[in-house]
Amino acid sequence: MKVWEKRFSELPDDSILEFTSSLKDDFFLYPYDIKGSQAHVEMLCRGGYISPEEKKILIEGLEKIKKELDQGTFPFQKDEDIHMAIERRLQELVGEVADKLHTARSRNDQVVLDEKMFLKEKIKVIIEKIKSFQEIILGKAEENIEVIMPGFTHFRPAQPVLFSHWLMAYFWMMERDKERFKDVLKRNDVLPLGSGALSGTSLNIDREFLAKKLAFSRVSPNSMDAVSERDFIVEFVFSSSLLFLHLSRLSEELIIYSSPFFAWITIPDKYCTGSSIMPQKKNPDILELIRGKASKILGYATAISSLIKSLPLTYNRDLQEDKDVLRETPREVISTLEIIQRIVKEMEIHPANMQKDATTSYVLATDLVELMVEKGTPFRQAYRKVGEIVKILEKQGKDFSSLSQEEWNKYFPFPKEEMKDFEVKISVERKKSSGGTAPSRVKEQIARGRELLAK
Amino acid sequence: MKVWEKRFSELPDDSILEFTSSLKDDFFLYPYDIKGSQAHVEMLCRGGYISPEEKKILIEGLEKIKKELDQGTFPFQKDEDIHMAIERRLQELVGEVADKLHTARSRNDQVVLDEKMFLKEKIKVIIEKIKSFQEIILGKAEENIEVIMPGFTHFRPAQPVLFSHWLMAYFWMMERDKERFKDVLKRNDVLPLGSGALSGTSLNIDREFLAKKLAFSRVSPNSMDAVSERDFIVEFVFSSSLLFLHLSRLSEELIIYSSPFFAWITIPDKYCTGSSIMPQKKNPDILELIRGKASKILGYATAISSLIKSLPLTYNRDLQEDKDVLRETPREVISTLEIIQRIVKEMEIHPANMQKDATTSYVLATDLVELMVEKGTPFRQAYRKVGEIVKILEKQGKDFSSLSQEEWNKYFPFPKEEMKDFEVKISVERKKSSGGTAPSRVKEQIARGRELLAK
Amino acid sequence: MKVWEKRFSELPDDSILEFTSSLKDDFFLYPYDIKGSQAHVEMLCRGGYISPEEKKILIEGLEKIKKELDQGTFPFQKDEDIHMAIERRLQELVGEVADKLHTARSRNDQVVLDEKMFLKEKIKVIIEKIKSFQEIILGKAEENIEVIMPGFTHFRPAQPVLFSHWLMAYFWMMERDKERFKDVLKRNDVLPLGSGALSGTSLNIDREFLAKKLAFSRVSPNSMDAVSERDFIVEFVFSSSLLFLHLSRLSEELIIYSSPFFAWITIPDKYCTGSSIMPQKKNPDILELIRGKASKILGYATAISSLIKSLPLTYNRDLQEDKDVLRETPREVISTLEIIQRIVKEMEIHPANMQKDATTSYVLATDLVELMVEKGTPFRQAYRKVGEIVKILEKQGKDFSSLSQEEWNKYFPFPKEEMKDFEVKISVERKKSSGGTAPSRVKEQIARGRELLAK
Amino acid sequence: MKVWEKRFSELPDDSILEFTSSLKDDFFLYPYDIKGSQAHVEMLCRGGYISPEEKKILIEGLEKIKKELDQGTFPFQKDEDIHMAIERRLQELVGEVADKLHTARSRNDQVVLDEKMFLKEKIKVIIEKIKSFQEIILGKAEENIEVIMPGFTHFRPAQPVLFSHWLMAYFWMMERDKERFKDVLKRNDVLPLGSGALSGTSLNIDREFLAKKLAFSRVSPNSMDAVSERDFIVEFVFSSSLLFLHLSRLSEELIIYSSPFFAWITIPDKYCTGSSIMPQKKNPDILELIRGKASKILGYATAISSLIKSLPLTYNRDLQEDKDVLRETPREVISTLEIIQRIVKEMEIHPANMQKDATTSYVLATDLVELMVEKGTPFRQAYRKVGEIVKILEKQGKDFSSLSQEEWNKYFPFPKEEMKDFEVKISVERKKSSGGTAPSRVKEQIARGRELLAK
Repeated sequence: MKVWEKRFSELPDDSILEFTSSLKDDFFLYPYDIKGSQAHVEMLCRGGYISPEEKKILIEGLEKIKKELDQGTFPFQKDEDIHMAIERRLQELVGEVADKLHTARSRNDQVVLDEKMFLKEKIKVIIEKIKSFQEIILGKAEENIEVIMPGFTHFRPAQPVLFSHWLMAYFWMMERDKERFKDVLKRNDVLPLGSGALSGTSLNIDREFLAKKLAFSRVSPNSMDAVSERDFIVEFVFSSSLLFLHLSRLSEELIIYSSPFFAWITIPDKYCTGSSIMPQKKNPDILELIRGKASKILGYATAISSLIKSLPLTYNRDLQEDKDVLRETPREVISTLEIIQRIVKEMEIHPANMQKDATTSYVLATDLVELMVEKGTPFRQAYRKVGEIVKILEKQGKDFSSLSQEEWNKYFPFPKEEMKDFEVKISVERKKSSGGTAPSRVKEQIARGRELLAK
Repeated sequence: MKVWEKRFSELPDDSILEFTSSLKDDFFLYPYDIKGSQAHVEMLCRGGYISPEEKKILIEGLEKIKKELDQGTFPFQKDEDIHMAIERRLQELVGEVADKLHTARSRNDQVVLDEKMFLKEKIKVIIEKIKSFQEIILGKAEENIEVIMPGFTHFRPAQPVLFSHWLMAYFWMMERDKERFKDVLKRNDVLPLGSGALSGTSLNIDREFLAKKLAFSRVSPNSMDAVSERDFIVEFVFSSSLLFLHLSRLSEELIIYSSPFFAWITIPDKYCTGSSIMPQKKNPDILELIRGKASKILGYATAISSLIKSLPLTYNRDLQEDKDVLRETPREVISTLEIIQRIVKEMEIHPANMQKDATTSYVLATDLVELMVEKGTPFRQAYRKVGEIVKILEKQGKDFSSLSQEEWNKYFPFPKEEMKDFEVKISVERKKSSGGTAPSRVKEQIARGRELLAK
Repeated sequence: MKVWEKRFSELPDDSILEFTSSLKDDFFLYPYDIKGSQAHVEMLCRGGYISPEEKKILIEGLEKIKKELDQGTFPFQKDEDIHMAIERRLQELVGEVADKLHTARSRNDQVVLDEKMFLKEKIKVIIEKIKSFQEIILGKAEENIEVIMPGFTHFRPAQPVLFSHWLMAYFWMMERDKERFKDVLKRNDVLPLGSGALSGTSLNIDREFLAKKLAFSRVSPNSMDAVSERDFIVEFVFSSSLLFLHLSRLSEELIIYSSPFFAWITIPDKYCTGSSIMPQKKNPDILELIRGKASKILGYATAISSLIKSLPLTYNRDLQEDKDVLRETPREVISTLEIIQRIVKEMEIHPANMQKDATTSYVLATDLVELMVEKGTPFRQAYRKVGEIVKILEKQGKDFSSLSQEEWNKYFPFPKEEMKDFEVKISVERKKSSGGTAPSRVKEQIARGRELLAK
Repeated sequence: MKVWEKRFSELPDDSILEFTSSLKDDFFLYPYDIKGSQAHVEMLCRGGYISPEEKKILIEGLEKIKKELDQGTFPFQKDEDIHMAIERRLQELVGEVADKLHTARSRNDQVVLDEKMFLKEKIKVIIEKIKSFQEIILGKAEENIEVIMPGFTHFRPAQPVLFSHWLMAYFWMMERDKERFKDVLKRNDVLPLGSGALSGTSLNIDREFLAKKLAFSRVSPNSMDAVSERDFIVEFVFSSSLLFLHLSRLSEELIIYSSPFFAWITIPDKYCTGSSIMPQKKNPDILELIRGKASKILGYATAISSLIKSLPLTYNRDLQEDKDVLRETPREVISTLEIIQRIVKEMEIHPANMQKDATTSYVLATDLVELMVEKGTPFRQAYRKVGEIVKILEKQGKDFSSLSQEEWNKYFPFPKEEMKDFEVKISVERKKSSGGTAPSRVKEQIARGRELLAK
C-alpha cells in the first residue's frame, strides 16, 4: 500500500516496485528515523497537534518498531522505503493515531535528518578511531625511537632517517584528517527537519525545540537548500577518500617493507592469509584490501559528485543513490582504521635489516656536501664535486672510505680523518633542523603529538 | 578452517576474518564456480588424476552443493570466500576424495574463470535487452512517424524535427552500445583456467578440453597475464557507463518533456510515485533513478580503474574489490534497460502540444535563409539579413508573416507569397538530406534499423 | 645543462627532455619561487652562509629575473623546470655566488613552498569572489523580495515559493563553500621550506624566520610528511568541485527558466552567443560552459586522488602531474565566480510569468491538507482525501474552486468560503516556519546574510 | 566581429569573450577544419551552389590560411573559435565569395567532423606505436628467453618464471589494447558532415561524395544523433585509460625491479634524472611520470563522462570542454608509448640477480606438492603436508634440501634423491601447460606474437 495510491489511476507492478524501492538501501537509517520521529511527535504535542495520550502511544509504538527492527522481526511488505515502512507499521500497531505522525513533515526533510544524525554519530566514531591510531603511532615511534632506515625519494635510497620519523609522518597525516572530519562535523551540525517538502510549513512548529532534542546546534536557514543539498555527504566522502589515500600509502609501504627483499618488518601471521595452491605463501591481504578500498571510496566520491551535478533544486529521486555511499563509506573507514592500527601495533620491526639497508648506495653523499659547505665551499660546487666522485667510485665499485689520502685531497678541502665518523647514525643526528629526523627533533614531535591528543 | 592453517603460527580472529572475507561479495559467483569445477573434474579424470568413480562422486557432490546454495540451505561457516566454502562443503559431503578437486588449479585462475563465465552470460542478456529496446523505439517511431516537435540546440528551440527522428537518435546510440558490448564479449571469450597461480602447472592438463566444455573459443596465451588482468571488467564497466550516459540523456529529456510546462508526453502513473506530503504530486522517479544510476556506474568505472593502476603483476588482493562492480553493474544495466523500454512503449504522446511548441520562436528562420540561398543570395548574407529582421520583429512582438509586402521587399529577393506555405510541416519535409528529419528519410532510418535487428 | 650532469654517464636527448620537462606546467609558479628564494637568501645570510654583499647581489639578481619573466624576455634553454631555470639564469647574471642559493634547500621542499604560496593567494581571492557573489544574491533577493514562482520537487511544480527564497538557497551554498575554503586555507598555512629533500638538514637554518618572512603561521612538524603530502591540493580541488556542483545546479536552473517555455528570466544578450547557421538563436553558452567546467574540475579531483593513491613516501615524480590541476582549478573557479555574479545581477526577472506558472497544477493541495489539519483532521487522512479529489478533478479538467458547495461538503470539514483566499500569495505568507518561504522569514535570511558578510 | 552580431542588442565584452572563446582549446583542429572545408566547397560546387571559379578561389584561400596557421602568421582577432576565425580570415583574403562557404553546414556538424578526422589520424598512429612496442617486447623476450626471475603474487615470491614470460604478459595487454583501438576506429569511421545544426538541410547536398572525399566509410544515419554524440571521444578516452593502466603497472614493476634492493634491471642514465641536492641520486622519473599520466587520463574519463551525463540532445556548449580531453589524450598516449618502448629496449637485464632472488623463500613448495600429486597423494593432502614442513623449516632457518633422509621419509612418499634436481630451472621447464612459463611455451607465445604482428 502506498500513501499516495488514491491519487493514482494505476499502481506500479512488482518489477517497478523493485526498481524504485530503496528499502535495502535505506534500512540502515531506521534507528535515526525512529529517534527523529519521536522528537517530532513531542514537538507536535507541544504545538497542540497531538494530545499527551496520543504522544505516549506514538512514542511507544515507535519504540516497539525499533525493537522489531533490531531483532529482525519487523514484518516488511512491499514498502517504498524505510520511512514509509515505519509509518505503515505504526498504523498497524497503534491504529488511526498514526495518521498524525507525518504532520508538518515531508520525507524530504525527514531523510536529510536521518542521514545527518547517522553521519554525526559515525564521524564521532571516526575521530576516536583516528585518535587511537595516533596513540599507537606515538607508542611505536617511542619504542623504536633510534632505529635507522633508509629514507626514499623516487623509491631510491636518499638519506638515512629514523624509523620513528617515518612513522610520525603518518601521525601528521592523521592529524590533518582528524581536523578535516571535525570541520565536516561542524558543517553537518544543522537541523533540516521542519523544512517540509521544500517551502516550510504553515503549521505551528518549533524547530529550536527539535534541534535541542536531537542535539543539533543550529537549524537550517533556508528550506529549499535544506532538502536539496547533500554537501555534508560529498564533503564527508571527500574527507574519507583523502584519509584512505593516506592509509593506502602506508599499506603500500608496509607491503614492500615486509617483503623478503626488504625484511624490515614482519606482519603477524594473523593479518595474513595463505594461498589455495602454494603452501609456503603468507600474503599481506589486509594491506592490499586497504589499497583496494581506497579505490572504492574514490569511486564513491565520483559517483556522489556527478549525481548532484546540474540537478535542479530541490529534491530529485536521483538522490536516492546517495544511500550506498553514505552507508558504506563510514563502515569502510571505521573498520580499516581499526585493523590498520592493530597491524602497526603488532608488526615486528627488524632494526638490523633496516640499518644495513640504510648504509648502502652513497646515501651520505649529501652529508659530505653539507660538510663542504660548512668548510666554506659554495653549495652547488660541493654538490658537483661529490657527484663526480660518486660516478668515479661507482665505476670502480668503491665507496667514499676507499679513497686514498691523495685522491681525497684532490677533491676535498679538509683531511680525510674528518670523514671518519661518517656513518648513518651521525648523519641522522646532524639533521637537527626543525622538523628534521634528528632523535631530539623526533622526540619533540612525539611530545607535541601527545599534547595534541591530550587536548 | 583455512586450508593454509597448518603453515601459520597464528590465525586471524573474527574481526580480521570479517575484514578479509569476501563471502558476501562473491556469493553471486557460485553457479559459475560449480560449473567450472565440474568441468575441471572431468578434465582431471581424462588426465588420470581422478578415477571415473571419483569423478562421479565429485560432480554429484558439487551438484548437491549447488542445490543447497540455490535453496539457501548451504551451511556457511567462517569461510574465506565462496570458492573455499564450496571445497570445504564438498569435503563434508564426499570426504577425502574432495582433496583432489583443486589439483592443477589455483584460486587465481578459478576466480577469473568464474567472473568471465558470469560476465559472458550477462553481456548476452544485455545485448538482447538492447535489441528489444530498439524494437520498441522502432515501433514507437513508426506509430508517430509524422508528429512534429521542436528540436533543440542549447535547450533553445532551433528547428522543427519529427518526434520519430528524435527518438531514432536513441536507436543509433543503442546500436553503438550493442556493438560495443559485442566487442567486450569477443575479448572476454578467453579461458583463463589452467594458468595456475601464475606460472601454469607441471601436471598434465588439457585446456582445450576445458575451453570447449565451458564454451570459450580460445585459451589465454600467458598464465601471468591471465591471473593479473581485469580488462574484461574495466571494459565492460566503461561500456556500461557509456550506455548509461545515453539512458540518462533520454531520462533527462523525458522528465522535461513530461513536465506541465511542456506536456508533450505523459509517463503512465505506474511509473511514477507520489509525495509523502503533497497529495497532488506524480513524480517521474524511475527516470530520475536512471540518471542517478548513471552516476553510480561512472563511480564504478573510477573505482575499478584506480584499483588496477600501478598494481604489480600478478594477483593482488586489492582485486577482491572488483566484486561489487562486477555484480552490480550488469544488474543495474539489465533492470534499467527493462524498465526504460516499458516507459518508452507505454508513454502517451501529445502531438498537438508538441506541434504548437514547434511553431514559435522564429524556428523557421533557417528555412528562410536556405530559401534565399536557393534564390541566389550567398549564405552568410542571407543569414545576416534574417538575423537582422528577427531582431526587429522581436522588438515589435511580430513574426515573419506580419511583415507588410513593402517591408518584405526591403529584405527578400522574392515575393512574400513564396513564404506562404512556410510552416513546420513543410520545413520538416524539406530536410531531405541523408540522415535528415524529412519523413522519407526517417522511414529509411526505420527500415535500416529493422534490417539491422533482423540480422 | 643539468646540475647533475657530471654524475651521469649519458644524458637525456631532446625527446626525453620534452617528456620530462615540466617547464610549461610549472612556469606559473615563478613569482612564488622567486619570493621564496629571496626569503631563503636572507635566512642564509643570518645563518652566516652568505655575506651581506652576496645577499644583496642574489636578491637583486632574482628581482631582475622576475622582471624578465614578467616581461617575457627570460631566455629559456632546455631547462628541467622553472626552479632550475631560475638558478641557471642567476648563475649567468651574478656568477659564482649563485652557487650558494640552493644551500640547505631541496627542490622537494621548494616546490611545495611555491605551491602553497600560490594557493594561499588564490584561496583568498576565491573567498572575496564568493563574498561579492553573495552580496549580489542579497541585492537581487531584496529587489525581488515578493516575486512568487513555483517551487519544484522532481522537476514538477510542488508549492509556490518566493523567487528570493529560491535565490537565497544559493547564498547558503556559497556560505558553506566559503567556510570550506577558509578551512583549506587554515590547513595550508604551514611552511614546508627547511625540510630538505626529506630529512631536514645539518646546516644551521631558521625556519621560524622563514615562516614569518613568507607569512606562514606555522612550520611543518615532519620533514618527510612535508615533502610527500599534497593534501592541500586534494582538499582544495575537492572544495572547488563542490562549489562547481552548486554553480552547475544554478546554471541548469537558469538555462531552463530562461527558455521560452518558461520565460521567467532573460539572460542579457551579451552573455549569450549566436548560431553559425540559425539566425534567430541566442544561446546561454556561458551557463552551459559552467556546467561543463564542473565536469572538468571533478575530473581533476579523480586525477589528483588516483595519483597519490598507494604512492610510497616521499617525493615521487608522479607528483609533477599535480601542476595542471593546481594551475587550472583556481583559474576556473575565479573566472566562473566573476561571470556568474554578473549574470545573476543583470538578468531580467519576469514576475508575471513566474506567478502565472505558480498557480497551476494543484500546487495548493498541501495548503488544503494543512488547513484540514488545523481544523482537526489527522494529517494522513487529510492527505488521502485531497489526493482523491485531485484525481477526480484532474479527470474532469477542473480545479478546487470549481467544486460545487455540495461536492465540497462531501470532502471538507469546513465551508467552501474559507478556501476563498486560497491563492499563492497567501500560501507563501503562511509558510512562517523558521527557514520557510514566508516573506518575513526570507527577510530574516537576508538580514542574517548581511550580518555574516559584514563580519 | 561575430557573424551573429546583427541579431543581438548587446555584445559580449572582453572578459566574457575570454570566458567563452575556445580558440586556445580548438586551435589544434585547424588542419582538419580546412581539409573538411575544402571538401565541402567541392561538394557545394557539384551541387551548383558555387561556381568552378569560386571553388578555386575558396580552396586556394583556405590553403593560404593553412600556411598562415602552420607558420604562425595567422592574424588572430577576438575570434570565437578556430572555425569562425578561418571563415573571418577567408573573407579578408577572398572577399564576398567567402559568404558561400558555410552553405548547408553548421558549426555543430563541422566540429564533430574535425574531431573525428583528428581522432582517426591519431588512433592510426597509436596502433602503429603499439605494434612497434610489441616488436620490442618480442625482441627483448627472445634475447633473454631463458632468464629466470621470481614470479610474484601479492608482491611475495610465488613461483619462478621466465623473465621473457613476464614480459610477454605485457605483449598480450598491448594486443588487447590494439584491438580495442581498432574497434574505436571502426565506430569513429562515420561522417557527420551534412547533419546541419541538428535536422539536416533542405539544400541539395551529397554526403556520400563528402564521405568518399574525406575517407569515411559511412555517413551518419541520424542528424540529431550526429551532432549530439561524443561516444567516439568517450570510448577513445576509456581505451586510452585502460592502456595507461597497463603501462602504469609496467612502470611500477620496472621502478621496483631497478631499485638497489632488487637490481634486476638497470634503467639507462638518460632515462633518469638527478636530485637538486643529493648528488648520488639517479631517479626513474620517466616511469614515475607514466604512472602519473595514467591518473591524468583517468581524470579525463571522469570529466568527459560526467559532462555528457543527463545532457539533453543536441549540441550544448558544455561540449566545448571536450577539447582538452581530445587534444591531450592522444598526445600523452603517443609520447608515452614512444618512450616506454625505448626504455624496455635499452634497459639492461641482470640475470644473475634475478635468478638468485628466484631461489629463495621456498618458491619450489608448489613443485613439491605437484610431485607428490604425480606420485599419488591427493592434492590437498600434499599441500597441507608441505605447508607444515615449510613452517618447521622456517623456524629452524633451513630449506628443503637440509632435511635428513629420515625426516624426509616422514613426510614424503618418495626418496629424497628425486628432489635432487629440484631447482628453479627445472621447475620452470616443468610448467609445460598451455600458456605456462616453460621455455617451449614461451617460444610458442613469441611465435604467435610474431604472426599477429605480421598480419
